[in-house]
Amino acid sequence: MVELSHAPLDGIFQALADPTRRAMLRRLAESEASVGELAGPFMKPPVAMSLAAASKHIKVLEQAGLVDRTVQGRTHYCRLNAGPLSDATDWLRYYERFWAERLDDLERALRADTKPQRRRKKK
Amino acid sequence: MVELSHAPLDGIFQALADPTRRAMLRRLAESEASVGELAGPFMKPPVAMSLAAASKHIKVLEQAGLVDRTVQGRTHYCRLNAGPLSDATDWLRYYERFWAERLDDLERALRADTKPQRRRKKK
Repeated sequence: MVELSHAPLDGIFQALADPTRRAMLRRLAESEASVGELAGPFMKPPVAMSLAAASKHIKVLEQAGLVDRTVQGRTHYCRLNAGPLSDATDWLRYYERFWAERLDDLERALRADTKPQRRRKKK
Repeated sequence: MVELSHAPLDGIFQALADPTRRAMLRRLAESEASVGELAGPFMKPPVAMSLAAASKHIKVLEQAGLVDRTVQGRTHYCRLNAGPLSDATDWLRYYERFWAERLDDLERALRADTKPQRRRKKK
C-alpha cells in the first residue's frame, strides 16, 4: 500500500523548477531586496518580464517558505529563508550512493578499457 | 542584465515536485521494475490512480532524465538514473552556508537565553 505525503517538498521543488525563481533566490542570497529591486533586472531585456509576472514568481517563493516578506511603509522587502532548502537536500541525499556507484562503474569500465554495459534484468 | 538558463534543472525539480514521482524514484532505488510493477502500488487504495495517470508520471521522470526505459518484448522496464539528481544537489549546495548561519544564530540565542538563568542561580 502506498500512502503519499503531500509534503512541503512539493512546493519547494515546484518553486525551484523555474529559472526566474532560482535567479531570484540567488539574488536574495546576496542581500535582502525590495520587490522593485528583486523584480527590476527581470523586467529589462532580454527577459522583459512584466511586474505582475515577477510578483507572481515572488509569491510562489513565499508560499514555498523560501522568501519572507516584511512591509515598511509602501515598500515590501524580501529576504531569503533558506531553511526549507535543507529539506530538499535531505531528500536528495538518499540518492548520493547511486552517483558514487555510477562513478565506480565508470572507473571500472575505464580500467577494463570497455564501454559500460547496459544492465538487463533477467527473468 | 539577467539571462535565464532554461536548464535541465527545470525538468528535474519539476519531476521532484510531486509525491507520486518521488515515491516512484524511491521504489526504483531498490531495483529495476516493469511499468506494471512500478505503477501497481499507486493503482490500489488509498491512491487508486489510473494506469494512464501513473504512466504520465513515469514519462515526466523519463523526460527529466531520471528514469531509463528499456523494452523487452511487450514489457517496458524502468531503471533509476540518479545522475541528474546530483545537478540538483549541486545547485542546493550553494545555500548550505545559510542553514549553518541559522544554526549559529540559534546557538547564540540559546546561549544568551541561558546566561541570565545561570546568574540568577548564583544569586
